[in-house]
Amino acid sequence: MKDTDDSAPFYLPLGDEIPVFAAAYDSRLPVLLKGPTGCGKTRFIEHMAHRLLAPDANAMASTGALVTVSCHEDLTATDLVGRYLLDRDSTVWQDGPLTRAVRNGAICYLDEIVEARKDTTVLIHSLTDHRRVLPIDKTGEMVQAHEDFLLVISYNPGYQSVLKDLKPSTRQRFVSLVFDYPPPEQEAVIIEKECGIDAANAERLALLGQKVRNLRDHGFEEGVSTRLLIYAGSLIQRSIPARAAIDKAVIQSLTDDGEIKTALASIADVVFP
Amino acid sequence: MKDTDDSAPFYLPLGDEIPVFAAAYDSRLPVLLKGPTGCGKTRFIEHMAHRLLAPDANAMASTGALVTVSCHEDLTATDLVGRYLLDRDSTVWQDGPLTRAVRNGAICYLDEIVEARKDTTVLIHSLTDHRRVLPIDKTGEMVQAHEDFLLVISYNPGYQSVLKDLKPSTRQRFVSLVFDYPPPEQEAVIIEKECGIDAANAERLALLGQKVRNLRDHGFEEGVSTRLLIYAGSLIQRSIPARAAIDKAVIQSLTDDGEIKTALASIADVVFP
Amino acid sequence: MKDTDDSAPFYLPLGDEIPVFAAAYDSRLPVLLKGPTGCGKTRFIEHMAHRLLAPDANAMASTGALVTVSCHEDLTATDLVGRYLLDRDSTVWQDGPLTRAVRNGAICYLDEIVEARKDTTVLIHSLTDHRRVLPIDKTGEMVQAHEDFLLVISYNPGYQSVLKDLKPSTRQRFVSLVFDYPPPEQEAVIIEKECGIDAANAERLALLGQKVRNLRDHGFEEGVSTRLLIYAGSLIQRSIPARAAIDKAVIQSLTDDGEIKTALASIADVVFP
Amino acid sequence: MKDTDDSAPFYLPLGDEIPVFAAAYDSRLPVLLKGPTGCGKTRFIEHMAHRLLAPDANAMASTGALVTVSCHEDLTATDLVGRYLLDRDSTVWQDGPLTRAVRNGAICYLDEIVEARKDTTVLIHSLTDHRRVLPIDKTGEMVQAHEDFLLVISYNPGYQSVLKDLKPSTRQRFVSLVFDYPPPEQEAVIIEKECGIDAANAERLALLGQKVRNLRDHGFEEGVSTRLLIYAGSLIQRSIPARAAIDKAVIQSLTDDGEIKTALASIADVVFP
Amino acid sequence: MKDTDDSAPFYLPLGDEIPVFAAAYDSRLPVLLKGPTGCGKTRFIEHMAHRLLAPDANAMASTGALVTVSCHEDLTATDLVGRYLLDRDSTVWQDGPLTRAVRNGAICYLDEIVEARKDTTVLIHSLTDHRRVLPIDKTGEMVQAHEDFLLVISYNPGYQSVLKDLKPSTRQRFVSLVFDYPPPEQEAVIIEKECGIDAANAERLALLGQKVRNLRDHGFEEGVSTRLLIYAGSLIQRSIPARAAIDKAVIQSLTDDGEIKTALASIADVVFP
Amino acid sequence: MKDTDDSAPFYLPLGDEIPVFAAAYDSRLPVLLKGPTGCGKTRFIEHMAHRLLAPDANAMASTGALVTVSCHEDLTATDLVGRYLLDRDSTVWQDGPLTRAVRNGAICYLDEIVEARKDTTVLIHSLTDHRRVLPIDKTGEMVQAHEDFLLVISYNPGYQSVLKDLKPSTRQRFVSLVFDYPPPEQEAVIIEKECGIDAANAERLALLGQKVRNLRDHGFEEGVSTRLLIYAGSLIQRSIPARAAIDKAVIQSLTDDGEIKTALASIADVVFP
Repeated sequence: MKDTDDSAPFYLPLGDEIPVFAAAYDSRLPVLLKGPTGCGKTRFIEHMAHRLLAPDANAMASTGALVTVSCHEDLTATDLVGRYLLDRDSTVWQDGPLTRAVRNGAICYLDEIVEARKDTTVLIHSLTDHRRVLPIDKTGEMVQAHEDFLLVISYNPGYQSVLKDLKPSTRQRFVSLVFDYPPPEQEAVIIEKECGIDAANAERLALLGQKVRNLRDHGFEEGVSTRLLIYAGSLIQRSIPARAAIDKAVIQSLTDDGEIKTALASIADVVFP
Repeated sequence: MKDTDDSAPFYLPLGDEIPVFAAAYDSRLPVLLKGPTGCGKTRFIEHMAHRLLAPDANAMASTGALVTVSCHEDLTATDLVGRYLLDRDSTVWQDGPLTRAVRNGAICYLDEIVEARKDTTVLIHSLTDHRRVLPIDKTGEMVQAHEDFLLVISYNPGYQSVLKDLKPSTRQRFVSLVFDYPPPEQEAVIIEKECGIDAANAERLALLGQKVRNLRDHGFEEGVSTRLLIYAGSLIQRSIPARAAIDKAVIQSLTDDGEIKTALASIADVVFP
Repeated sequence: MKDTDDSAPFYLPLGDEIPVFAAAYDSRLPVLLKGPTGCGKTRFIEHMAHRLLAPDANAMASTGALVTVSCHEDLTATDLVGRYLLDRDSTVWQDGPLTRAVRNGAICYLDEIVEARKDTTVLIHSLTDHRRVLPIDKTGEMVQAHEDFLLVISYNPGYQSVLKDLKPSTRQRFVSLVFDYPPPEQEAVIIEKECGIDAANAERLALLGQKVRNLRDHGFEEGVSTRLLIYAGSLIQRSIPARAAIDKAVIQSLTDDGEIKTALASIADVVFP
Repeated sequence: MKDTDDSAPFYLPLGDEIPVFAAAYDSRLPVLLKGPTGCGKTRFIEHMAHRLLAPDANAMASTGALVTVSCHEDLTATDLVGRYLLDRDSTVWQDGPLTRAVRNGAICYLDEIVEARKDTTVLIHSLTDHRRVLPIDKTGEMVQAHEDFLLVISYNPGYQSVLKDLKPSTRQRFVSLVFDYPPPEQEAVIIEKECGIDAANAERLALLGQKVRNLRDHGFEEGVSTRLLIYAGSLIQRSIPARAAIDKAVIQSLTDDGEIKTALASIADVVFP
Repeated sequence: MKDTDDSAPFYLPLGDEIPVFAAAYDSRLPVLLKGPTGCGKTRFIEHMAHRLLAPDANAMASTGALVTVSCHEDLTATDLVGRYLLDRDSTVWQDGPLTRAVRNGAICYLDEIVEARKDTTVLIHSLTDHRRVLPIDKTGEMVQAHEDFLLVISYNPGYQSVLKDLKPSTRQRFVSLVFDYPPPEQEAVIIEKECGIDAANAERLALLGQKVRNLRDHGFEEGVSTRLLIYAGSLIQRSIPARAAIDKAVIQSLTDDGEIKTALASIADVVFP
Repeated sequence: MKDTDDSAPFYLPLGDEIPVFAAAYDSRLPVLLKGPTGCGKTRFIEHMAHRLLAPDANAMASTGALVTVSCHEDLTATDLVGRYLLDRDSTVWQDGPLTRAVRNGAICYLDEIVEARKDTTVLIHSLTDHRRVLPIDKTGEMVQAHEDFLLVISYNPGYQSVLKDLKPSTRQRFVSLVFDYPPPEQEAVIIEKECGIDAANAERLALLGQKVRNLRDHGFEEGVSTRLLIYAGSLIQRSIPARAAIDKAVIQSLTDDGEIKTALASIADVVFP
């Protein structure tokens, strides 16, 4: 692991995720990040890419130490690997994002991988065992991964249906790190830093976040992301009254259900009386 | 926010939606507009695009400060981003509507986003977090959004099925503004202004709208849009008798159900005796 | 509205549909025609296109004042808007039927619109509000509708399943005219005129039609179209015995159900003893 | 109708289908043939095409007075209308079978039309009303039908599921002729003529057919086609014992169900003791 | 029928299938082979193709008297008929396997036809009635079948679901021959001949096969194929102990179910003590 | 069989799988490997390819004695066989992985074959019976397999649903070898060798593996793969505490279920107190 870098994106560790990821990276063990929406998985992987691969921000920008792909149900292996484009006189091969990462030695982060089409499986398998190769069927090339390359994927256990689960034969190829929302004290620091409001309001918003997430035990599965709390802080900074800001940035963004809205509003009344 | 502009489309605010949207725009927080059919979401976003981005109507027309896309279930990321067209001797890239908005600094309004294909997700995510980039896979370009660009989406909570819900990981990227039909006094002003009938008939049509929407508590989910009330007014202006105009422009356009038609006709009898 | 034109197709009005359509056209309000199979919707729109847009039959033929498209479940926006065709040396853009109507100022009639693919929605929306534009994604053109253009659609409330209903956000963009089969006296006139049989047989066929449609109250949803009554008349004109003609042109064309056939035959026995 | 022609395919009329079809043809009314598998619908339409359009067999072969298409669930409008083929230097348009019939004035027979894809609907509609045109979207051509052209379709009421029914708006465009298996005396004549066995065996096979079809009242929906009886006769002619021939050509071709096989074998025992 | 040919593949007839097939071929009646996996249908058709069409092995190889296609759910009419291939300067038509058989006068054997896509229906119908033509839509050619051509199809009644049944209108175009596994004495001869083990082991393997198939009455639908018994014999020949060979080649290849494995192992214990 | 080769990948045999596979290979009988995720099937086939086909590692690398394809639900026959690629002036045929193996005489290993599209069936059938040919439809070539070629497939009986089962007509073409996880003593040897930790920890990890797999009798179907145990060992080698390493590499990678996690944690407590 390279030395800590002040230019890396701000990330407050919540447990041993930094040394475990570093150890996995040193052994080039693929990593799976598990956790709910907006709890900091993307931020964490950006932070680690900086620490491990890009000693300064310029290097990060120029070398592309991290390649992120938001997966969706129409994403195919071709989208990841590349395709031929028709040019004026000939066809030109164009690497996709995964291929660029494999060739250049970046971390490739496939966010919500279970959403992607299943033909991505063949890519994942050959890149996550002793072969570390990416087969490009259309060119016949077998790209041996750069020594710095690592595949990282994420998924949210709360969402997955039976049809969209990772196959065990895929899943058992990854070291798995579990993420959750930060505790209120840490979240307040993050909110304050990101939207520039005062500490008192940041703490209240963090408390609000904690109370909303406690509703998970009462059947409201979806916790509020730190991002939405920052949105609320931003609106407050722009002189929108706190309760209006919370209504627009938190409550209405979380649900359309009348009863849940009432419950969330009661929480907001307590925290911002 | 630029100064108010008399040339902006007429919009009567119903709450704090104008300052909240302006604050969100100033922080470049993406916005979600929630509300039923024809309650003025599209009009509102046109109004705000004028106020915030186009100081006069000519600028609006020339700069394209607002790019609107009506989503549907066959709409793909390619439709939004652009495609290669085969030309006489070569292929030519053509930006799609979203790309044009990203490059030129317009507000891009994706109406009824949940109807679109899921490959639009990857575009939404990278444009609504700190990256603010639009990846164009086919050209390999990463378009950094113009500083004036903002993504705005809408959806109608009344329609959504489980299959067509916004994923929380998408939804929690937006400040949410709730819209509903205007109160009768305001709606009467709108009707009068749009179709030129006299104030008495405009008020009666607005009252009709209110009474029809109250049927929502009795199981008729679909409220009548202001547009249909304006249609009825237009027919009345063209000398069609009021009851016939209401029958054609409101009742028959709302439902095929015999009992509901009878209920709506009773309301019309009361309002236009 | 232009003056009445003797060359317009024969159409017997059943209510106020002619002045209401004319008023809607004058305000360029889009129109929805609702009604069962073969009750005259297509004939009505042909008649109105003549009256409003084509003062004589030659103009009708040459200007194409009416463009009709029978929708089906494979019909896409591309089919309506147009496509590039590969030519010897280049590609050539070819307008589809909707684009031709938009450019030339015709009435475009989309028959049974709910059968079409959903990507037609985006076309309908932008052509039926204040924008009146047709976006052609493939060429990047925004075609401003000719001032004479109007969009008219039809659907049959009796057929629609939940899956094939018009979305309220679409439906609430149209003035709706309801059609039903003509009363017997008028239908007899139509039959006599169309197939040239004598008045007595035409009246009997019209009576037969009325009695068959009354079965709707007894669970036989599908009324007989005027067209089938004309077919029966044509066969009678060609010397096929009346009962055989009714069996082939009406009963067997309406149903495969044995009990319903028996009921229909009993009606035929009464009308043609 | 042209004079009867000795070279027309052998067809024994069972009712008034010949004069009714001829009258419908004379008025150019489209015709629907309804009936079970192998009862002679295809033979009938071949016979009528000869009688009405092709005075001698040479004319039939050279003019292609009848164009038959067996529909299936992958058959599209493009398959019927035609397509562009890529040639050495350019693309060449090639008419499909329906277009050839429309241009040349043939009868086009779409066998089991409900199996075809729904985009064929638009073709059927415009060819079966007063327009009699075939729109070719890809070339922009509107082909006015030759005056001799007629559209004939068939379907088997016994097979149709709700999903594969003819829409009433399509069905009510046809005169409908009902077919069923011939009575035993006539079927024996056909069998004898087609496979050359003696009259006694032909009569026994016809009796067998009648008895098998009577099982329809006992839950065996599928009647045996005349074709299979002819197959059995052909095997008998080639010295296969009658019971073995019936087993192979009738029983095993009709069912895989053990109980039904036993019932059919009992019938065979009675007829061929 | 040509004289018996010593070079034809070894086939032990189990009933009258050889003369019946020969009689059907002489009348060019299409044939359907029904029976379970691995009971010899493919071998039979190879044998008959030799006897009827290829007097010696060289002729078989050179003329391609038999064309076999294993059908699957992605097999389309295009796969059978042929397609245009893009060449350097032009497109070249390439006959598919069915077209080659039709032109050259081979037997075309479509194995497990119900697995294929439904657009193959149109080919089957026109090749199995008096027309005996293969329409090639893409070239506009109607290929008249060579006089030696015959279409033969197979299916396994045990597998078919309602969705994958042969339509009666297709099925009633074939003479049907039923196949089943050979009796033990005959199967022992086949095993001995194919893998070269001694007669005692061959007889034991045939006995094993018989006992396994008797489990069909106890709910184990899938009988063991002769091929697997030959595999077991081959392993025994290569010095694998008999019980291990049976375990690998028979039991584990038949099932993953623990109870059925136990039942099969008990049978093996009895036969190979 | 060639002599044992020290350069072959490390493989500890658990039964008679090596001599049985060698005997099957000598008779060119196709082989099916059955067993759970990560129990060593892939390693075994790599080992056998070395032993049977590649006397030294260089030969393995240069001749490509083994061609592995991870199947998935979008994998088609075209992906296996090859395709035409558009070049500057012409099209160039490119063999797929299966074709390369067939031509060059390699073992082709189709991992999790049931995941692939069904058009692969036709390839499997003709390569696994006496024909040993690979039909390439697009070129018209019938590639006779190299004498060293063998087809090997795998599947995991625990995963298969009814929809994704091997058809018996396919399955009964293979000798089947059953695999399971190694016993603890052997697994400890493998772990120690692969990640370099001390024997005591390797033994504890192997014991952990055994205890986790015993949960299969208590409803936890998915056993832990040897790979995950090696991952845990690797993290321990990188100074991550054992319990943390097991949590990340084993427990979190196996399940998201809270109760199962608790059960697995209890096991870890016992083994690594």
